[in-house]
Amino acid sequence: MKVICSRENLLEGINIVQKAVSTKTTLPILEGILLECTDNFKLTGNDLEIGIECVVEADIREQGSIVINSRIFGDIIRRLPDSEVLIEVRDNNVVIIECENSHFEIKGLVSEGYPALPVIKKENGFKISQKIIKDMIKQTIFAVSIDENRPILTGTLVECKDGELTFVSIDGYRLALRRNKIEGQSEELKVVVPGKTLNEIAKILQPADDEITIYSAGNQILFDMGNCKVVSRLLEGEFLNYRSSITNDFETKIRINTKEFLSSIERASLIITSEERRYPVRFNIADDKIVITSATEVGAVKEEIRVEMHGNRLDIGFNPRYFMDALKVIDDETIDVFFATSLGPCLIKPVEDEKFIYLIAAVRK
Amino acid sequence: MKVICSRENLLEGINIVQKAVSTKTTLPILEGILLECTDNFKLTGNDLEIGIECVVEADIREQGSIVINSRIFGDIIRRLPDSEVLIEVRDNNVVIIECENSHFEIKGLVSEGYPALPVIKKENGFKISQKIIKDMIKQTIFAVSIDENRPILTGTLVECKDGELTFVSIDGYRLALRRNKIEGQSEELKVVVPGKTLNEIAKILQPADDEITIYSAGNQILFDMGNCKVVSRLLEGEFLNYRSSITNDFETKIRINTKEFLSSIERASLIITSEERRYPVRFNIADDKIVITSATEVGAVKEEIRVEMHGNRLDIGFNPRYFMDALKVIDDETIDVFFATSLGPCLIKPVEDEKFIYLIAAVRK
Repeated sequence: MKVICSRENLLEGINIVQKAVSTKTTLPILEGILLECTDNFKLTGNDLEIGIECVVEADIREQGSIVINSRIFGDIIRRLPDSEVLIEVRDNNVVIIECENSHFEIKGLVSEGYPALPVIKKENGFKISQKIIKDMIKQTIFAVSIDENRPILTGTLVECKDGELTFVSIDGYRLALRRNKIEGQSEELKVVVPGKTLNEIAKILQPADDEITIYSAGNQILFDMGNCKVVSRLLEGEFLNYRSSITNDFETKIRINTKEFLSSIERASLIITSEERRYPVRFNIADDKIVITSATEVGAVKEEIRVEMHGNRLDIGFNPRYFMDALKVIDDETIDVFFATSLGPCLIKPVEDEKFIYLIAAVRK
Repeated sequence: MKVICSRENLLEGINIVQKAVSTKTTLPILEGILLECTDNFKLTGNDLEIGIECVVEADIREQGSIVINSRIFGDIIRRLPDSEVLIEVRDNNVVIIECENSHFEIKGLVSEGYPALPVIKKENGFKISQKIIKDMIKQTIFAVSIDENRPILTGTLVECKDGELTFVSIDGYRLALRRNKIEGQSEELKVVVPGKTLNEIAKILQPADDEITIYSAGNQILFDMGNCKVVSRLLEGEFLNYRSSITNDFETKIRINTKEFLSSIERASLIITSEERRYPVRFNIADDKIVITSATEVGAVKEEIRVEMHGNRLDIGFNPRYFMDALKVIDDETIDVFFATSLGPCLIKPVEDEKFIYLIAAVRK
C-alpha cells in the first residue's frame, strides 16, 4: 500500500473514524484504524457496535491495506506540519509515514483480522438535512436512560411515518420528543438506535444543509453522509408506548420565557448539592406569576418570574435537573408549560407548533 | 453587615480569592470566603499557606463581617444576572443575597473563627510590572520539584541583588533560570517561594504593565497588586548552589529555530508512550544538521533540522519532556544550545542576552 494525501484531509478523516474506535478492548486490532487503498483511500473504525468509514481524497500509488493503532496514528498526523503525507506499508507490516523532514516507522497489523462492517442495502432510505438530525439528536438524547436493566430505553426511538420523522427518548422520569417533516417519498421505519451511536453521529454531523440519507435493514442502521458512513446495530425489543402519557388535559398552563425560566431553576438548584439531591425545586403558580423555591441544609432560594397564566393556582415539586436538561436544548424564546395536577407530570410545548414535547414527572411531597 | 455592589466586580473578586480557598480541608471555615465591611468591602481566602485578599468597589450600608461557603457563594454570584447585588447578614448568621428577582438565604459562619492573614510591613519592597513577573513564573515554574523528600526544591528561588531579579527552579534533572532588571532602589532579597503560590499568582497577574510590589519579612512574602494582595509562607532551608553547574565550557554549540526544535522533539516523543517512558530521544549533531531519533516497541521516528553548528560532532540522549517543557515557554524565535560532552548536561540560552538559562541533564545510554 502506498498513498499520498494532505495532512488536513487525513486528519479530518481520522477524527471522524476515531469516534468508533474502542479505547477499552482486549483485542489490539480493535484499537486500530483500518487503512484501505483500492479505487479510493478509506479509513475505518469499528468497535463492533458502531462502525464508521470515511473516504479521504488521496493519490493512490499502490493498493493494499493495513491496521494501525488509532491513538498513535492520530497523534502523529495531528503533530505533522500542514503538508503532503506519504503512507506506505513495507515488509513485516511496518507503516512508513513521511512528511517534510519527519520520518516514522510504526508497526502495523495485518488487515485480515479486522472485522468487516455490516453491509446494508441502500434501499428505501430517506433524506434529510444534517443540521436537522443534529438538532433532533441534541433535543432528545439527554432523556435516554442509563439504566442497563431496561436496555431498550438506553436508545432513542426513531420513527418515520406519514411524511414525519420522530425521535423519542424516555428514561422513566421524563420523555423527550422531537418531530420534523420529511420531504418526498419514504418507507415506514420504526427502530431504536443506541444513545451512544446518536451521540457520536451528532459530533460528526455538520450544522449545515448538507444531506444525510438514513437506511435500515435487519438489526442495523446506516447513516450515509456521502464521504462518511456510520453503521450501527439497533436495540432489540419493544419501545414503551409513550402516546398514552401525552394528553392535552391540564389544570394550569403558563406561557414563559425559556431563558428566564432556565436561569431561575439553575439558581434555585445551586443549593441542592450532590449530598442533597433528594430535594426538589417547587413551583408556586398564582396571579400571573411563578415563584420557584428550594430549601436545603445550605439555605433557601426564592425566584419570581412574570408569566401568562391560565387555569388554577398550583403548587408542585420537580427534580430541577430534568427541567434544566430540557430547557437548555429548546431554541424557542417562549414556551407553554402545562400542569395536570399537583402530582401529575408536566408538559412543555412550543407556543406555535408541535415540533417538540417534553414530559417531566413531578416529585411527590 | 449590609453592602451593595455590582455582580461583575464581586465575581472578579471571588474568582481571585477562591484561588486560596481549600477544597480539601476538615475545617468548614477554611472552605469559606471571609466578607468584611469596614471602610471598604474586602473578600479573603486563606488555606494557611496562601492568603489572598481583594477589595471590591461597593456601597457599604452597614459594617460587619461573615464567612460564607466559597463554592456556593461563587456559584450563586456566577449565575446572577449582570446587575446590582445586595448582601446582608441577618440573625443567626443568615446571609441574604438579592439581585433582581432572585433571593437567597445562605447559612454563614461567624468570622471570629477565621484565621487572620499574617501582617507584613510594607518596607523595602521592590516594584516590577505584573507582566514580567507572570512571564518569569511561567518560564521557571515547570522545573520545580514535586518530590516532597526535598521540600526546598518544591519552591522557586527568588533573588533580588544588584538591580536584578532572578527566579531559579531545580528538580534534580534540570534547572530553569530567568532574570530581569529591576528599576530603582531595592533591598537585597533571597527567598524560596512555594511553587503552588507562584502558580496561583501567575493566574491572578494581568498580562499588562500594571505594577506589583513585592515585600518579604520573616518567613512570609507579600505580593501587592493594589486592590488585591497575596501573602504566602516561604520555604525554609538552603537552596541548592546552582551557580557551579552553569559553565561556559562546551564542545558543541548549535543555533536552532525554537519552534522547529520543539515540534520535532514532540513528534519523536509520540512513540514514547507512558509504558515506555524509559526511552530517550537521541540527538545526532553533525554537518550543520541535527537528527533527532527515537525507537521503542511501537516503532521508530527520525527528524532532521538544519542548524548553525560550532564544535564537534555529538551523539547524546535526553528525556524529551524536559526539552519540551523548556522550549514551550521560550518566546525567542532562535536559541543557542550548548553541549559539554556526550553525557554532560545541555545548556539553552538566548542568542542575544542572558535573560534565561535552561540546564537539562543527559540520559546515560
